[in-house]
Amino acid sequence: MDSIHPFIYDLIVVGAGHAGCEAAHAAARMGCRTLLLTIDLDKLAHMSCNPSIGGPAKGHLVREIDALGGLMGRVTDRTFIQIRLLNESKGPAVQAPRAQADKRLYAKVMKETLETTPNLDLRQAMIERILLPQPPGRNGSAAPADDPAGVQPGHYAVITHTRRVYQSRALVLTTGTFLRGRAITGEAIWGAGRAGEAPATALGEDLAALGFPLVRLKTGTPPRIDARTIDFSQTSVQQGSPTPLFFGHYYRVLGEIPPEPAFTGAPACAYPEPLRAAWRPQLPCYLVHTTPEFHEIVRRNLDRAPLFSGIIEGVGPRYCPSIEDKIVRFADKERHGLFLEPEGWSTHEVYVQGCNTSLPEDVQWAMLRSIPALRRVELMRAGYAIEYDALATGEIAADMSSRRIPGLFFAGQINGTTGYEEAAAQGLMAGINAARFIQGKPPIILRRDEAYIGVLIDDLITKEIREPYRMFTSRAEHRLLLRTDNADLRLTRLAGELGLVDRERVEAVERKREESERLLRVLRGQRLFPSAATNARLSDVGIAPLSSEMSAEDVLRRPEVRYEQLRQALDLPACDADIAEQVEIEAKYGGYLQKQQREVERLRRMEARRIPPDFDFTALRGLRNEARQTLQRFRPATVGQAARLAGINPADVAILIVALERRGRRDMALDVRSGA
Amino acid sequence: MDSIHPFIYDLIVVGAGHAGCEAAHAAARMGCRTLLLTIDLDKLAHMSCNPSIGGPAKGHLVREIDALGGLMGRVTDRTFIQIRLLNESKGPAVQAPRAQADKRLYAKVMKETLETTPNLDLRQAMIERILLPQPPGRNGSAAPADDPAGVQPGHYAVITHTRRVYQSRALVLTTGTFLRGRAITGEAIWGAGRAGEAPATALGEDLAALGFPLVRLKTGTPPRIDARTIDFSQTSVQQGSPTPLFFGHYYRVLGEIPPEPAFTGAPACAYPEPLRAAWRPQLPCYLVHTTPEFHEIVRRNLDRAPLFSGIIEGVGPRYCPSIEDKIVRFADKERHGLFLEPEGWSTHEVYVQGCNTSLPEDVQWAMLRSIPALRRVELMRAGYAIEYDALATGEIAADMSSRRIPGLFFAGQINGTTGYEEAAAQGLMAGINAARFIQGKPPIILRRDEAYIGVLIDDLITKEIREPYRMFTSRAEHRLLLRTDNADLRLTRLAGELGLVDRERVEAVERKREESERLLRVLRGQRLFPSAATNARLSDVGIAPLSSEMSAEDVLRRPEVRYEQLRQALDLPACDADIAEQVEIEAKYGGYLQKQQREVERLRRMEARRIPPDFDFTALRGLRNEARQTLQRFRPATVGQAARLAGINPADVAILIVALERRGRRDMALDVRSGA
Repeated sequence: MDSIHPFIYDLIVVGAGHAGCEAAHAAARMGCRTLLLTIDLDKLAHMSCNPSIGGPAKGHLVREIDALGGLMGRVTDRTFIQIRLLNESKGPAVQAPRAQADKRLYAKVMKETLETTPNLDLRQAMIERILLPQPPGRNGSAAPADDPAGVQPGHYAVITHTRRVYQSRALVLTTGTFLRGRAITGEAIWGAGRAGEAPATALGEDLAALGFPLVRLKTGTPPRIDARTIDFSQTSVQQGSPTPLFFGHYYRVLGEIPPEPAFTGAPACAYPEPLRAAWRPQLPCYLVHTTPEFHEIVRRNLDRAPLFSGIIEGVGPRYCPSIEDKIVRFADKERHGLFLEPEGWSTHEVYVQGCNTSLPEDVQWAMLRSIPALRRVELMRAGYAIEYDALATGEIAADMSSRRIPGLFFAGQINGTTGYEEAAAQGLMAGINAARFIQGKPPIILRRDEAYIGVLIDDLITKEIREPYRMFTSRAEHRLLLRTDNADLRLTRLAGELGLVDRERVEAVERKREESERLLRVLRGQRLFPSAATNARLSDVGIAPLSSEMSAEDVLRRPEVRYEQLRQALDLPACDADIAEQVEIEAKYGGYLQKQQREVERLRRMEARRIPPDFDFTALRGLRNEARQTLQRFRPATVGQAARLAGINPADVAILIVALERRGRRDMALDVRSGA
Repeated sequence: MDSIHPFIYDLIVVGAGHAGCEAAHAAARMGCRTLLLTIDLDKLAHMSCNPSIGGPAKGHLVREIDALGGLMGRVTDRTFIQIRLLNESKGPAVQAPRAQADKRLYAKVMKETLETTPNLDLRQAMIERILLPQPPGRNGSAAPADDPAGVQPGHYAVITHTRRVYQSRALVLTTGTFLRGRAITGEAIWGAGRAGEAPATALGEDLAALGFPLVRLKTGTPPRIDARTIDFSQTSVQQGSPTPLFFGHYYRVLGEIPPEPAFTGAPACAYPEPLRAAWRPQLPCYLVHTTPEFHEIVRRNLDRAPLFSGIIEGVGPRYCPSIEDKIVRFADKERHGLFLEPEGWSTHEVYVQGCNTSLPEDVQWAMLRSIPALRRVELMRAGYAIEYDALATGEIAADMSSRRIPGLFFAGQINGTTGYEEAAAQGLMAGINAARFIQGKPPIILRRDEAYIGVLIDDLITKEIREPYRMFTSRAEHRLLLRTDNADLRLTRLAGELGLVDRERVEAVERKREESERLLRVLRGQRLFPSAATNARLSDVGIAPLSSEMSAEDVLRRPEVRYEQLRQALDLPACDADIAEQVEIEAKYGGYLQKQQREVERLRRMEARRIPPDFDFTALRGLRNEARQTLQRFRPATVGQAARLAGINPADVAILIVALERRGRRDMALDVRSGA
């Protein structure tokens, strides 16, 4: 070997799912020599569950990932077979795009993207052991026998299944469902990271041996069915967006259209009437509903359901439950919607969204066949549940690193979440903060009022995760500020500072900000009087007449008025749709936005009250026992974090604040006495 | 369940590699309701080794598969990144196309093709048990507990890992390297069907329990390297064909050009100067050589080589050896060529053809880095060996079915072969003969003088397979007749009769045959005299003058003369390149072809001498002990087969013929006595 450099990296990312891909890409872009390790390079960025990205809250995460220079949105834009804006009729806070991806194409484009990223190496290997860094003074007793060079001080070492030793200054673990994974369908149980793939058993044992408390979680997938056996005439068709829509801010802000997807000829023959919108070909999805017979079949077979028979030990996601769980928990609900989602342009495999199940395969067949559109349906893959190891609550800090061991980061399902978008968001932040750690810089921690990503991570570190965590708009108390339309305004400047996006893109976002503000000032300054001439002009563009003096902004505040109408009536400047959108939202919701902003300021002050790392919560007098234990366990870094802990009430917070102030005064006195 | 039909098929094919895909497709086209089962639908038609198809003997197999209506050639034509004609300067018998496929695209197009094949269902499932058919009289004692309907008489049942029971009248097993698979790199050994994928352990145990004698075989893959770390300036570039070239007879005969590959933009940046021939974009391959240092590193580490340390029990392919094996066995050879083959249009993974190895990963790095072009190379995947179960010799018959159990067919690596093309050829024949079995029709057995496929299967049933079997042109004694250019003339008529190709295609091939023969008759009839005028006309097109009277065919017999020249000089009819090729070969090699044809007739007579199934070889007097054991073991069906058995010499054959004639007379006498 000429040199040992090929095996010494700044950062090693273990696992190349949605978390690992973002982590590795972000750190590499930030200048770290990064290694991405995966058990099977052919399964990189594999969509093991739903072939879809986005929707409310999840779509918000994707826009934020994109605004921060991440990949998920960009790759989806190049590979979707359908995209729609969900909640189009509702307020801007809950509107979000949702795309169906071509499963194979998504993985292919992601792999291409990572392979051409400078500073980033991809390797196929299963990690079996992790050696923690040794302090500089200590000699190489931890050096593995097969690496004569030994492990450098301050470096992690990971040992692969083929006895290769890689070293790095920081480590991101994104093990997904592979850590001691166990798949279950009815009475059948087999070791698997995903169906057909080997589990990471040795690494699970190694993490346990390193002292990490692990819990068992569970998730599941629905059956995949053969499109040729669906009676589409008995489904409701759900078409994609008739107008251009993308996740990527880049495309929206710079006006660049992502390259056409590699659309290889006609879609598979089984799908009727694909929508061929002028702006891009799309495939529809199809909606069906469960039937009374379906529910009866499930109930009759509950004794064979691993979820209820005690076979499944892991805890599943309450908000993404299996169909048997839904039927038992919502016994009075007569039917559940199931979306039939094609898995790609040219495959007949169709994902049955909403039908996660680990019931025996014969029951899966019978229940689906009770649905009129699926009377003759055939399953191409049976649904299954998968149990895996995840970290117990309280193990990670706000920068995604271990509270025990500096430089060791975790992202994705290992932190107790579910969902590609949640994984990607964590991966991105873990990658950023691993790079910051390596560069000796303070971590980047997004606040709850800055991003859904901030909400997600704050929830992970302040809430007891008893089940796989999924993002919802309802989790974001400041959701009016955290919209999909302003993710770039909120985050791209930071991305620019971190080196995650180039200057051109930052400047484009700043132009958007300035032009929106300028236009809003124009609208505010323009006074309109209820004259016949003014009302006639307004009426010409479909705006109801004025009855009193008001500003142009006031007119735009009316729910039905669009900027484009106002522009025509009042000869206002033309602007991009993006700017008009900001101005409309500001005009219509400005009052609410300002109120939410004030609430944010108040909380931010509380957040600014830091709790010293050595603070002894057990010594707090007057605190309820439960509150004391919770504080001691989670060790919040700020009063804000403490206030958000489950089981901490305002009275507990008041006691904490008093104690902190008392300690602050004492520390100051000590400082004075010691002459500091 | 409305009906049990979804679980009862005519044919079940287990495994969806290159053998399984062809078997399932052929049987479905022949009208059998067919089920194709695979452990991972995302890995269907996966190229686990070399991303290339064809070359001498293997390319012959692909053309034959295509001529019989198989898929491998067609799918390759749509997905190659490069194609070349090998041995272009040698005789027509050894010329063959060889393509580099885009690995991901190949699998995608194959999956699309199978999914849209009528009568064919694809399912993801791992088979754990096989229940053999029960005679009609016997009641359902063999019915598995979880299938109340029981197994129908005369049906196989397979039980999946999720306890699903499928039934069928015939079964094709194509288990590849998955049967109790065990992967090995240096000191590391792990259970795997392929790297990262689970082995089929239960099925291996089940086959052993059913009484099948299994042997352990071994194969291996080389490392995959990162194109960005190759110094291409120190390699020899190998460009693709500058003129159109395809495997598919369909395209060649009907003049249809296969659709452009889904070529998504520019190839990955790391490859210098891709060839952009007018007819299709292609990527080059690159040649490097091992160095003395490379050999020294390998030799120094032989104590760590699983191949020599006793870790590997399975027997590997002698003709596709690992690099450590080559260096030990050919100790005086100073260097070996290694081809660097891109694995697709837009990946940086490069396959190091010729460098199969199971040496420890650190040794793999060191040895590759001893090559000037690879001084800084980085491995993306380490090479590994894989050991797996295969059937012992003598278990299958000429129709690819078990000698013990009717209706049970085997194809691919389980029969002891290596190579995608060998697997596909067997899969095709197993699929055809399973369909014939189901339809109650006699099997299709290709003779050694009809096809390389015939040579392959005849070798499998008459030779002791001590190592994975690979096809070579030297194995075909009639190779002058078995060319890539005439695979359609040899086989497409049969394919038409079997329903594997449509009439249009058969007619096109028959037109080619007739037009070639007609043109040849014209050439034979046209007498040329060495007149000044004739010689002048010949000279105008570059043909040397005549010195005596001869036919136009005689002129064409000259090695350097092409039909196109002759046509211009003598105003002969214009014809397709395909026809001209046949005429040239017939003219130039006609004498050899006829001689070989006479030899074929002689052997065919010997082949016609059938040996009764109950013939007692042990009672043959005058036979050497070894010959008697060999005959008893392989139980040849014809004298021809007996003659080809290893260890059987002409004297043994003579004794056999005499005994057969004696028995023939006796049987006739018995028939007369019994009044038949």
